[in-house]
Amino acid sequence: MRVVVIGGGFGGLAVAKGLRKAPVSVTLIDRRNHHLFQPLLYQVATAGLAPGDIAEPIRSILASQRNVEVMLGEAAKIDTTAQHVELTDGRKIPYDKLVVAAGATHGYFGHDEWAAHAPGIKTIGDALEMRRKLLLAFERAEWTTDAAERKRLMTFAIIGGGPTGVELAGSIREIASISMLKDFRHIDTTATRVLLVEAGDALLNGYPDHLRAKAKVQLEELGVEVRLGKAVTLVDERGLVIGDERIETTNVFWAAGVKAEPIGAALGAPMDRAGRVQVEPDLSVPGHPDVFVIGDLAAFEQDGKPLPGVAQVAMQAGDLVAANIWADMEKKPRGTFRYRDVGKMATIGVRRAVADIPGLEFSGFFAWLFWALIHLFVLVAFRNRVVVFAKWIMSYVTHDRGSRLLWQVEGWQVTKVANPPPGPT
Amino acid sequence: MRVVVIGGGFGGLAVAKGLRKAPVSVTLIDRRNHHLFQPLLYQVATAGLAPGDIAEPIRSILASQRNVEVMLGEAAKIDTTAQHVELTDGRKIPYDKLVVAAGATHGYFGHDEWAAHAPGIKTIGDALEMRRKLLLAFERAEWTTDAAERKRLMTFAIIGGGPTGVELAGSIREIASISMLKDFRHIDTTATRVLLVEAGDALLNGYPDHLRAKAKVQLEELGVEVRLGKAVTLVDERGLVIGDERIETTNVFWAAGVKAEPIGAALGAPMDRAGRVQVEPDLSVPGHPDVFVIGDLAAFEQDGKPLPGVAQVAMQAGDLVAANIWADMEKKPRGTFRYRDVGKMATIGVRRAVADIPGLEFSGFFAWLFWALIHLFVLVAFRNRVVVFAKWIMSYVTHDRGSRLLWQVEGWQVTKVANPPPGPT
Repeated sequence: MRVVVIGGGFGGLAVAKGLRKAPVSVTLIDRRNHHLFQPLLYQVATAGLAPGDIAEPIRSILASQRNVEVMLGEAAKIDTTAQHVELTDGRKIPYDKLVVAAGATHGYFGHDEWAAHAPGIKTIGDALEMRRKLLLAFERAEWTTDAAERKRLMTFAIIGGGPTGVELAGSIREIASISMLKDFRHIDTTATRVLLVEAGDALLNGYPDHLRAKAKVQLEELGVEVRLGKAVTLVDERGLVIGDERIETTNVFWAAGVKAEPIGAALGAPMDRAGRVQVEPDLSVPGHPDVFVIGDLAAFEQDGKPLPGVAQVAMQAGDLVAANIWADMEKKPRGTFRYRDVGKMATIGVRRAVADIPGLEFSGFFAWLFWALIHLFVLVAFRNRVVVFAKWIMSYVTHDRGSRLLWQVEGWQVTKVANPPPGPT
Repeated sequence: MRVVVIGGGFGGLAVAKGLRKAPVSVTLIDRRNHHLFQPLLYQVATAGLAPGDIAEPIRSILASQRNVEVMLGEAAKIDTTAQHVELTDGRKIPYDKLVVAAGATHGYFGHDEWAAHAPGIKTIGDALEMRRKLLLAFERAEWTTDAAERKRLMTFAIIGGGPTGVELAGSIREIASISMLKDFRHIDTTATRVLLVEAGDALLNGYPDHLRAKAKVQLEELGVEVRLGKAVTLVDERGLVIGDERIETTNVFWAAGVKAEPIGAALGAPMDRAGRVQVEPDLSVPGHPDVFVIGDLAAFEQDGKPLPGVAQVAMQAGDLVAANIWADMEKKPRGTFRYRDVGKMATIGVRRAVADIPGLEFSGFFAWLFWALIHLFVLVAFRNRVVVFAKWIMSYVTHDRGSRLLWQVEGWQVTKVANPPPGPT
């Protein structure tokens, strides 16, 4: 039996690993060669970690599982009648069972024109581009002679108060006020303004109310301006508009919405507004029992609420799909999906966090320590655990951020600079 | 007094640090924001280290030296009459003393058309591009159905038998035959062919003869084909021609020649064939006592032989220039340059090396260990020492290479593939 899995994220890997001992041959297709530990991607964007620390070649992860082959390629079409996946380069990959775990990308709620001014982070490329934008803003601010320009360059606005937005805002305030403290001669980086904008009336939707309030307090202690209850109505090259107020900034980052990868639409199945495929209780697509959809691409309601787009949901779904493929082969009935909540956490800077574990809710330093240990433990590769642990310890002690590198500065220009100000003062 | 330094490499940094306590203001200009530890750049190209492991923001290195300011920018012209440097964005930076330490780039001996087919490594961008090419070759080889194409993809040719060529060839053989051993299902990576082509009659020009012979033996033990005594006469999209022989390969890498950065020509001083500026014994430019040139951009003969383009030469020259600027201020005579040879080393794979230290020549495992310790010791940042040490230990034990990441695969195509071969065998 030939099983094809589209996507090497948490869901796709769980399917492949769950079929480790099955008499099947698995083809895992991904358009990148690496699995990405997305929960730490914001640390790459804010120069705390390097790409290799949180990514691992899919081939390495599955190297010893001999019934899996890995294919670099992008799925373009799915033919459920002929039972094959067609890649963008024209190759056709036949399947007996298909698992679509292609994930999600940024969604701008119908304002795709904002994307150019407010990049989000879903891939390593996105994170490196955000890091580049962040670092160049300070380089420009150091040398501009225009005070208004300097203020725009030293203002950062993050749209979206979920975990990624909270983590980005806290990290940017810290890098500016602590890590970069002595790096510049003409600007005071501690004056960097960081706004976190959330349309809802509290941060971290889905967390208990007192932790949501706590997150706001902790961010404000770091110096982040938290703006709640007003939606962003415009994003352009000058900045953004919240309600009636215009914020002038060259640095807007998007952490507000996601939208499913378009390959889901190729199935012709019913979808929700964000493009997620509605799945049956056994995670198969209605009318196509041999096709499963899991992870951020799947819409699944439990107890009347949609499940969140987090790693745990995708992994548990991947486990169930592998079990259901086994069940089909053994002609046993399939199981149905039920998510067991193992808790969730968000960090706020280097020493603070909020944690919502079933039967346990806490915040502050111990939540941060707990967050750090859990994340180290679940990092895929042992090597990454060692390196990330070492970097975190050093960053905790020294506030150093080692990945402040710019290697694509072609076309870079300091704007509105006549001649530079005199030497160091 | 205003000192302008162009270039944040080993030479430029040595000048800035040497003026730490001088009553001057130093402006260090670089078109990238980081100092790069070039001797380990080949390890980034071959996925052993990450860019951040061997690069450090120039601002961080000089953060506590308050008389230095760092400017991101590219020097376009030097006006020795008006005494200013003009950047590509039009800014003019006045100087009382100027130090040009802009370094060198790849040189193709008049065959610039080879550059597109035989990339070299001088920057992080170059190293990441080489890594991308290397990894994609194996991804393509895994899925092509054309045996000749597969052979071309699994053949690597490195042109130039200096330290970089020797280190690249050894690393590529190791990554193919050991690190990637279990990663693929349809190809045998141990069959990867690696050629090292050198026009001279031995590798490692400048080393003692028996070490040059030893390097060849050690590379051949690793499975590298060493071709000596024949020059490359053609490089194109199909591969390269050595003498009368055509080698079919999609992977040609350049480690043969360097050429000085063009800013040296802006001085109007006499230059050698590679574009290096001929300097006076005090390292100033003839006729311009307030302008110094050091590092790979300077041509300096000692005992009738040109000095090599290595970090130690640049650093010692930077020290002397800082001292000569001091001497000028104190109206004392300037010193003249004399390079003290501290030795040189090259690694051949993970456990072998050759070392030529004054009064001491050795090779093999202990040379490798010595090489590793010295390189760790001279890495600029403490954090990098810890991380690189951890990675080397792990790589020594497990042969794992953690940085095998592809994040720019846009436009990637498997060529000449009809339908994929059947599943894992």
